[in-house]
Amino acid sequence: MPTRQLSLNLFIYPDGHHEAAWRYPSAEIARLTDVSWFQRLAQQAEQVAFDAVFFADGPVLAENIEYAPRFRLEPITLLAGIAAATSRIGLIATASTTYHQPYNLARLFASVDHQSRGRVGWNIVTTTNDAAAFNFGLDAHPSHAERYARAQEFLEVVTGLWDSWEDDAVLADPVGGRYADPAKIHRLDHEGRYFTVRGPLNVPRVPQGRPVYVQAGSSEDGRGFAARWAEAIFTAHQTLPSAQEFYCDIKSRALGLGRRPEHIRVLPGLSPFIGGTEAEAKRLQAEFNDLIQPGYSLQQLRQMLGVDFTGHDLDAPFPRHLIAPDNSRAVASRFQVVLDIVDREKPTLRGLLHRLAGARGHFVLAGTPEQVADHIETWFTQAAADGFNIMPPWLPGGFEAFADQVVPLLRRRGLFREEYARSTLRDHYGLPRPESRFAALPQRRAS
Amino acid sequence: MPTRQLSLNLFIYPDGHHEAAWRYPSAEIARLTDVSWFQRLAQQAEQVAFDAVFFADGPVLAENIEYAPRFRLEPITLLAGIAAATSRIGLIATASTTYHQPYNLARLFASVDHQSRGRVGWNIVTTTNDAAAFNFGLDAHPSHAERYARAQEFLEVVTGLWDSWEDDAVLADPVGGRYADPAKIHRLDHEGRYFTVRGPLNVPRVPQGRPVYVQAGSSEDGRGFAARWAEAIFTAHQTLPSAQEFYCDIKSRALGLGRRPEHIRVLPGLSPFIGGTEAEAKRLQAEFNDLIQPGYSLQQLRQMLGVDFTGHDLDAPFPRHLIAPDNSRAVASRFQVVLDIVDREKPTLRGLLHRLAGARGHFVLAGTPEQVADHIETWFTQAAADGFNIMPPWLPGGFEAFADQVVPLLRRRGLFREEYARSTLRDHYGLPRPESRFAALPQRRAS
Repeated sequence: MPTRQLSLNLFIYPDGHHEAAWRYPSAEIARLTDVSWFQRLAQQAEQVAFDAVFFADGPVLAENIEYAPRFRLEPITLLAGIAAATSRIGLIATASTTYHQPYNLARLFASVDHQSRGRVGWNIVTTTNDAAAFNFGLDAHPSHAERYARAQEFLEVVTGLWDSWEDDAVLADPVGGRYADPAKIHRLDHEGRYFTVRGPLNVPRVPQGRPVYVQAGSSEDGRGFAARWAEAIFTAHQTLPSAQEFYCDIKSRALGLGRRPEHIRVLPGLSPFIGGTEAEAKRLQAEFNDLIQPGYSLQQLRQMLGVDFTGHDLDAPFPRHLIAPDNSRAVASRFQVVLDIVDREKPTLRGLLHRLAGARGHFVLAGTPEQVADHIETWFTQAAADGFNIMPPWLPGGFEAFADQVVPLLRRRGLFREEYARSTLRDHYGLPRPESRFAALPQRRAS
Repeated sequence: MPTRQLSLNLFIYPDGHHEAAWRYPSAEIARLTDVSWFQRLAQQAEQVAFDAVFFADGPVLAENIEYAPRFRLEPITLLAGIAAATSRIGLIATASTTYHQPYNLARLFASVDHQSRGRVGWNIVTTTNDAAAFNFGLDAHPSHAERYARAQEFLEVVTGLWDSWEDDAVLADPVGGRYADPAKIHRLDHEGRYFTVRGPLNVPRVPQGRPVYVQAGSSEDGRGFAARWAEAIFTAHQTLPSAQEFYCDIKSRALGLGRRPEHIRVLPGLSPFIGGTEAEAKRLQAEFNDLIQPGYSLQQLRQMLGVDFTGHDLDAPFPRHLIAPDNSRAVASRFQVVLDIVDREKPTLRGLLHRLAGARGHFVLAGTPEQVADHIETWFTQAAADGFNIMPPWLPGGFEAFADQVVPLLRRRGLFREEYARSTLRDHYGLPRPESRFAALPQRRAS
């Protein structure tokens, strides 16, 4: 059995993850709607054998579009464009169970898994931005609990759709005149609280059986959902103990549900500023922080905490007492992360904005390549991570520094592959290819 | 001003349009889920400067999957994969207004119009297959009138979303720190019978302003809808007078709505069997017809006429009296076409199945390259067509014959371009790039 290996994703924000990345002098701001920009980034990640590229999404325009390129090309179609320009790297797109119909979404991902020959992952979200509701005829964004209840049922439906063609349903027998065996193509006849879906899907079973299920929830509901469904988890932690608690909790929950813990890859975010010396890296980080705009940063903070700090003195201590214990208007996965930073580091408001500017609450590390590799090795070997979602502060330079200077160190330490062993995303992550639930029925086995 | 030119689309059914194409000895049946298959077909069409490739769609599995590869890769993602392998040819995908949410669909097409630099068209359908309803939580497929009412409102919404960013909304000013001008990004605040959508879209305005609107309705509702919205119309006619009636009616209706008639391209379907002599072409057609399977053909016929003829004597005269005058269970665009064939040609049931096997009611022509070119020239110059949706009986051979033998004749006659003059689908079709409805507001012009 091979040594346990790191998984590394490149999480692509078009301009990079630092909120002022687009203002950095080398930024190629005119190319952010250009598919060749994303194809190049994916090719660069493929050259160093990264597991996947990863795209966030949400079906609503960000409020802070004035201050940064926070539009969103629809990411599943973007994966199809990237698939055509790559051959091995995994391709993960975010899509919301709250604002999609399962039959349509199942088809979109199935089509791209075929096009990429088995490289697709779905980052399952329930959407945090309240305003999305108004684009879909709702008076209000459904509650957290409601969104997760719908997500559970959504997953049951799309899993059934992806399973609806057994692997050997296609006969492709031109002489006998039979293209497919209808006995191996199944209806779901699903009737639930949120969905009634007959099926079958109108697409043959995909190369990976199903896309890889990725998830990022950290609330109680989110963790329960992840333990049941997720095969890779994207998560935000500022300290080793916090990451270890999460890692252990998720793996325990999965074990409790009869799953093998190694079949859930836990991947914290990591945004590295890399320099020849630590001081040089910190100078680089400061260069970016000097470009932030409080109007943007305060909107971000409001989303994370549910409180608007506009008008407060940026250089006074952060007004901790204004944060209500009720965080129902906040992003669950960030609320505690930010409070922990505040309690631990006692920053000014401006200091907190700088602290969060790099990656919206994900871990930002300014250091030498060795320091970055040490951090990765520590978390990987001390039960905090199976790998990382690398979130370069700016692109492509921030990623190139990681690929050129950190990846070789990780390889020298035996932590990361020299090249791809196989070709699907399931292969890269070491995940099994699921059998169709219909193929697993006893009566089908007997026939 | 250049001479009026033909528009030619390649309508791609994965294996070809003849219902037994996949059984033809040269069929590459194993490649039909392979994006490189579709990329190659599009590249071949691009080499002869076709206007576009065209994909049908429906969100339900065809009943006759047993007898032919009638699955459907989701076509918008497929366009994205093809866009990456081509640079000039237009890319048209079908999507249903009955079974999509406008915000999601607007994003999918916007993303592919960006990826292709302005080559996307949307074939707007309301879906004819009743069974789609059961994949979307409905008890029954909405009525024809209901579907068209929803389609009208759907078009108003997505048009507003595609218009929601004015062309100059993106400032991309890193020094000033302003990425976009919020005064040029507009909410719709649409509240209608079917949809409530706030907007704006979360994607900058697309290269073409909006995708090209393509449509295929032929009912009264369908013609009204087309006259209002369509920029290209795909239509089925078996005779020159029928095509002329349709052509003239659509152009008149458009004129009546204040549109310019040349801004609606009328494109009948044409499925050519090409041979060195007419007899050779007819022998080729007979070879394909010998491969059809009545089980498949009778299902097709049932969809077109709303009547199941299974069990009837294939070699007796077609039982015309069984067709009810009420065609509510039939496909509106085919019902009359098929009845006209029956009344004109008095075929046996088998003869009718052969007649329809080539292209589901579209015009099938077995002849020499000259005969095919003559047909095209006649319809084009006698107010029956602005071009054609070419539906090769099998692929790639059926298309290669047209490209190699018919296209040169059309060029010699001055009917078809030698090469692309410009690069968007709107350019190829000679359509204007629409201005954003918000940019056209007087108060905005004044500011």
